[in-house]
Amino acid sequence: MKSFEVVFQPGGLETEIPEGSTIMEAMHRAGIDADFPCGGRGKCGKCRVKILAGGGEPAAVEREILAEKELENGIRLACAAKIHGHMTVQLPERLRHNILIASGERAYQIEPHLRKVYVELEKPSLDDLRSDWRRFRDTLAGHGSDGTGPALPLALLRRLPSTMRKAGYRLTAVMHGDKIAGFDGGDSTATMLGMAFDIGTTTIVGYLLDLYSGRELGVVSTLNPQTGFGADVISRITFAGREKDGLYRLHNAVIGAINNLVEEAVEKAGASREQVYGISVVANTCMHHLFLGISPENVAVAPYVPAISEPLVVDAGELAIDINRAGKIFILPNIAGFVGADTVAVLLATEMDRSEDVKLVIDIGTNGEIALGTKDRIVACSAAAGPAFEGAQISSGMRGAAGAIDHVYFGDKLEYSVIGGGSPLGICGSGLLDTVAGLLELGIINKRGKILPLEQIANTSALRFKDHLTEYEGESAFLLAGASETGHGRPVMITQSDIRGLQLAKGAMAAGVRVLMEVYGIQAGDIKEVLLAGAFGNYLNPHSACMIGLIPPELEGKIKMVGNAAGTGAKLALLSSSEYSRAADIAGFVEFVELGSYPKFNSIFAECTYF
Amino acid sequence: MKSFEVVFQPGGLETEIPEGSTIMEAMHRAGIDADFPCGGRGKCGKCRVKILAGGGEPAAVEREILAEKELENGIRLACAAKIHGHMTVQLPERLRHNILIASGERAYQIEPHLRKVYVELEKPSLDDLRSDWRRFRDTLAGHGSDGTGPALPLALLRRLPSTMRKAGYRLTAVMHGDKIAGFDGGDSTATMLGMAFDIGTTTIVGYLLDLYSGRELGVVSTLNPQTGFGADVISRITFAGREKDGLYRLHNAVIGAINNLVEEAVEKAGASREQVYGISVVANTCMHHLFLGISPENVAVAPYVPAISEPLVVDAGELAIDINRAGKIFILPNIAGFVGADTVAVLLATEMDRSEDVKLVIDIGTNGEIALGTKDRIVACSAAAGPAFEGAQISSGMRGAAGAIDHVYFGDKLEYSVIGGGSPLGICGSGLLDTVAGLLELGIINKRGKILPLEQIANTSALRFKDHLTEYEGESAFLLAGASETGHGRPVMITQSDIRGLQLAKGAMAAGVRVLMEVYGIQAGDIKEVLLAGAFGNYLNPHSACMIGLIPPELEGKIKMVGNAAGTGAKLALLSSSEYSRAADIAGFVEFVELGSYPKFNSIFAECTYF
Repeated sequence: MKSFEVVFQPGGLETEIPEGSTIMEAMHRAGIDADFPCGGRGKCGKCRVKILAGGGEPAAVEREILAEKELENGIRLACAAKIHGHMTVQLPERLRHNILIASGERAYQIEPHLRKVYVELEKPSLDDLRSDWRRFRDTLAGHGSDGTGPALPLALLRRLPSTMRKAGYRLTAVMHGDKIAGFDGGDSTATMLGMAFDIGTTTIVGYLLDLYSGRELGVVSTLNPQTGFGADVISRITFAGREKDGLYRLHNAVIGAINNLVEEAVEKAGASREQVYGISVVANTCMHHLFLGISPENVAVAPYVPAISEPLVVDAGELAIDINRAGKIFILPNIAGFVGADTVAVLLATEMDRSEDVKLVIDIGTNGEIALGTKDRIVACSAAAGPAFEGAQISSGMRGAAGAIDHVYFGDKLEYSVIGGGSPLGICGSGLLDTVAGLLELGIINKRGKILPLEQIANTSALRFKDHLTEYEGESAFLLAGASETGHGRPVMITQSDIRGLQLAKGAMAAGVRVLMEVYGIQAGDIKEVLLAGAFGNYLNPHSACMIGLIPPELEGKIKMVGNAAGTGAKLALLSSSEYSRAADIAGFVEFVELGSYPKFNSIFAECTYF
Repeated sequence: MKSFEVVFQPGGLETEIPEGSTIMEAMHRAGIDADFPCGGRGKCGKCRVKILAGGGEPAAVEREILAEKELENGIRLACAAKIHGHMTVQLPERLRHNILIASGERAYQIEPHLRKVYVELEKPSLDDLRSDWRRFRDTLAGHGSDGTGPALPLALLRRLPSTMRKAGYRLTAVMHGDKIAGFDGGDSTATMLGMAFDIGTTTIVGYLLDLYSGRELGVVSTLNPQTGFGADVISRITFAGREKDGLYRLHNAVIGAINNLVEEAVEKAGASREQVYGISVVANTCMHHLFLGISPENVAVAPYVPAISEPLVVDAGELAIDINRAGKIFILPNIAGFVGADTVAVLLATEMDRSEDVKLVIDIGTNGEIALGTKDRIVACSAAAGPAFEGAQISSGMRGAAGAIDHVYFGDKLEYSVIGGGSPLGICGSGLLDTVAGLLELGIINKRGKILPLEQIANTSALRFKDHLTEYEGESAFLLAGASETGHGRPVMITQSDIRGLQLAKGAMAAGVRVLMEVYGIQAGDIKEVLLAGAFGNYLNPHSACMIGLIPPELEGKIKMVGNAAGTGAKLALLSSSEYSRAADIAGFVEFVELGSYPKFNSIFAECTYF
C-alpha cells in the first residue's frame, strides 16, 4: 500500500500515512490531539482545515456542510477529506493551541542532556602503553571533559577494548555532564534520538524525537499490559503485594511494553534502537514505582508516601531497556502518592509556574488530578472520582474505544456519535456527561439527580424524548439506542444508578476544585483559564461538563483542551535539561492538599454531588 | 574436635587451631609466611620460637635439637611443638619482619573507605509527606552527608521502603565518601568487616579483616578454579578468546571462588556475609581482567596494553559478589600488561615508594615481576621465566605441594626435605634450585650447565655423590631419590634438559634484574636490600638463588623474604583509603621497562643463562 507525507502548518509537523486515510487520521498519527465534537462523522463541521498543497475531490459530506466558497479556498473537513497524495494542511486557530502543545512547540530551548564527542585515539605502541580506558579518557580530556571522572560502568568498560580496535581507534563518546555515559565505535555524532513516554494506567504513549532538532519523528502507543493484572492503580498495588512475584511481573510487563514501543517507533522511522540515547518518563506515582520496580504499597495506605519523588536518572541497562548502551532514562519527579510525575509534566507543559493569571488544570480520570495557581503559588490535589468517567461500573458503560457513544445531541430528536463510526456498543464517559447534561437542561432529571416520572416533567419540549424514558431492572432509565440499533442487539441506556455513579465522580472532582479554591483563597471568577488535560478531558463537551457542575459553570467560556499535556511535558523534559530541572522545581514548589484530611471535605463533597 | 587459641607476639595476631596441630600450622593459619628451611621436619632448628604461656611436653626431635637450657626457657621448634591448650608464642627477630608484614602491621593508619551512620527517621504523617528516599537523605544531611548526592542505585532504592518500616524507621547508612552506598535496617554500626583478596594464577588467598580495628579474623585460600581451563595466564587468555563463552566461564569461576571463600571465612569467624562491606583485590593484569569480566586478549599481544590499569571501585552487586548490598570492591591498579596490581601491592607493602635506600623486589613465577628503586624513582619489568620455577616441564617436577622435594642438602650424603613429610613424589622449584646450586658448587656441572662425565669432575669431594650420576632417556641425569624411596615407585631426578630449563628461567629473571640496573644506572653493590615476595620466593634458599646467579651473588647477605607481600598490600589498601590512593600513586610512578624491546636484551639474556 502506498503512503504519503502530510505536513501540518504552522509547526511543520510531518507524518506518513497510508493512501485513503483521512486528514483526521493523519492528525491522530502526528500526535495532534484535536477535538472532533461529532466524533468524525462529518456532522458538526468543527474540523475545518485548509489544504495548502495537494488534496483531491471533496467527499459528499463535505459538499453538504461546506459552502462553495470554502471549497474554492481549499477548506475541507479533516474527518472526511481523504489523502491520495502528499499534502500540506493548515490547522485553524482553534486547533493550533493543541498542535503547538502536542508537538512540544511552546517556547523552549533545546538543551540536550547528553553530548556526543568524536575522538580519534593514538594507537598504542611501545612508547605509549596507556590502558585503553586511560587512552580514551585522556583523549576526551582535550575535548571538554575534565578527564578526572570515575571510570565507566563495568558493562561499558568490557566493550571498550574490542570496540576501539574494530573501529580503528575512532570513537564517539556520549557524555552526561562530566561523566562518560558510553561510546559508539566510529563517528556517530550525526544522529541522536530519544523517546518521551507517558505511561498511563491504561495507555502508554511514546514519542520518538530527534534530540538535536526537537523534531518529532513518530508517535506510538499501546494498551498498558499491566491492565491484565488489574484495571486500576489500586488493583495493581494489591496484585503487587499479594501475588507471587507480583511486583516483578508488573514491572516486567511495562518494561516489555516500552521495549516494544521503542522497536516499533524506530522501525517506522527507519532508525535503530542503538540511535536512541535518552528516554524521559512521566507516569502517575504508582505507574512510576512499578516502572522502576519499586513496590507501590505505601502509596496505597495513609499517609500515602511515595518511595521516591525526586527526579531520577537511571542507566537504561539498569532497567533492561534496550536502547544504546550509553542510554539514560530521565524520570520526572512526583508530587505525592496520588499526584504524580504526569501532573508535574502537565504543569511544565502548560507553564503554570510562570503564569501571571490564575489557571486551573484538570486531568480527569479514576483519580483526577487538579492543580490551581500562578507563578507565585500552586496547590494540587487528587480526587478519587472512581471509574464512572472511564465508563466502568456504568450499566452500558465502556472505555472511549471503537463502538462507544462519545457525544449525544438533544436536537429535534436524539442524535449521537460513535467512535470509529458504525453501530454503538456502549457509552463512554464523555457520552454519559452529554446525556446527563442534556437531561438536566430538559428537566428530565432534577438537581438531586433523580429521573423524574413523566408526569413530573415540567418542560413540555422535553416530552419529545418521552419514548426514551424506560425502566431497567426495576429502576428508571433513559434509552439511547434500542436493541435493534446496536452492534450486539442489546439496548444502550443510562440508568438511575449510572447517574448516581456520575454524581459521585463529578462530586469528587468538583469538591477537589472547590477545596483548592478555598485553600488558595479565591473564587471561581478569579480563574482566567481552565485547561483540560488527558484523553478524557480532550473529548468531553465543555458545555456538558459545566452543565453538570463538574467545572464551575461560570468558567465555561474559559475552557481549553490541552491534549496530552503530560506527553508534551515528557517531550520538553527530554529535549531540554533546563526543562527537566524545571520539572523538579515545579514538583518541589507545588503544595499538595490531602482532600481526605481537609476539615470540611465531607460536606463539600456531599454538596458537590448535586447538579 | 577441640580447638585452642594461639596468640603470636609481638603484634598480638590470634588464630584458632585444632588440638594436636603444630605451632607451624598455627603460623600458616594466622597468615605468617615464615621460612622453614628443612620443610618442617625438625632438622634445621631454624624455627625456634619461645612459648610465653601454655605449651606442653617437648617432642623427641625437639629434645634432640634444642639445648636443655633452651627448653627450660620455653624455646621450642615451631614445626614440632604440638598445641594442647591456649598458647602465647613469641616469634624471634628473624620471623618478625614477616609477621609484621603478613599481618599488615607495618605502620599505617586505619582510614576506612566506608563510614556507617545510624539515623532515626521521623515517621511519615499527613504533616510530613516526604518520600522515603527524601526522608532518609534529609535525616542523613544532619549527620555529615551533604544531602545533595545522587539517589541510591535502583537496587537499593527498591529495598528502602520495606527496610525502613520493618526496622521502625531506624537505619544505618553506609557512606562511601559523600555518597550513600547502602543501608541496613536498625543499628549495625557495631561491626564492619572486609576481605582482602590476592587472586593468583594458581591460588586465591583471602584475609578477613575487621575494618574498624584492622584485626585479622581469618585466612582462607583455594586453588584458583580457572586452572581447570588453563594452567597459566596465556592458556587462559587463549581459552577466553577461543572457547564459547570462554571469558564468561573464566569470570564466573573466579567470582564463584571468591563467594565461596567469603562464605568460608565468615563462617569460621562466626560472622555473616552481610557484615562484609568492602573487598580489596590484587591480581596480575590477566587475572584482574578476568575477575572484572574484561577480555584480557590485548594483554597477550604486543604492545600488551591492559583494558584498564586505573584503580576501580565497583559495587559488589555489579560483580555478583554476595556480601552486604552496600558492599564495594576496591580493585588496585595495574602498571602494565604483565606487571599487575599484585606488584603494586608488593611495592605498597614494602614501601619502596618511601625508601631512601635502593631496594630490589623480586616476585618469582612463570612471569616474574621485578622492581628496583627508591622514593625518587622506581623501574619495573616482567620476565618471562617460563614454568621451570613452578616445577612444570621438569622431568620429575611438581608444584610446591605435599610430596615435593623442596630443599636439598649436599652434606656427607645427600639429604632432602619433602613438603608434608613422607616419601617424595617429585621436586618443586626450590628443590631444583638447591640441587643445581649444590652440583655447581661441587663442580659436577659446569658454568654452561653441562653435567660433566665422571672423569671430568675435578673436585674429589664431589665423588661421594658419584652413585647419583645416572642417565635418563639418553641424557645425563642426577638421581635424588631412587625408585624404592619414592611414593610412586619411580625415581626422582634432575636431567640435563631440566638444567637447561632452569637456565632459561633464571636467565630471564637475572636478565630482568640486569636490565633494570642498567636503566637505573647502578651496580648490584648499590642495592641495599633484596626482597623476595610470593610463595616461591619465600621457600627458596637464598644461597642457592645466588649460587646459580638468579640473584647477583654479592647480594646474598641482603636477601629478605617478605612472604605474601601482595596480600599485605591488599590488606593495607582495604583498611586505609590513603593506602589505596597511594597504590594509585605507585602505579602511576613506576616506569615500566619492556624487556623485549630493550636494545641489548637478547645478548644480556644469553649471557645470564650461564651459571
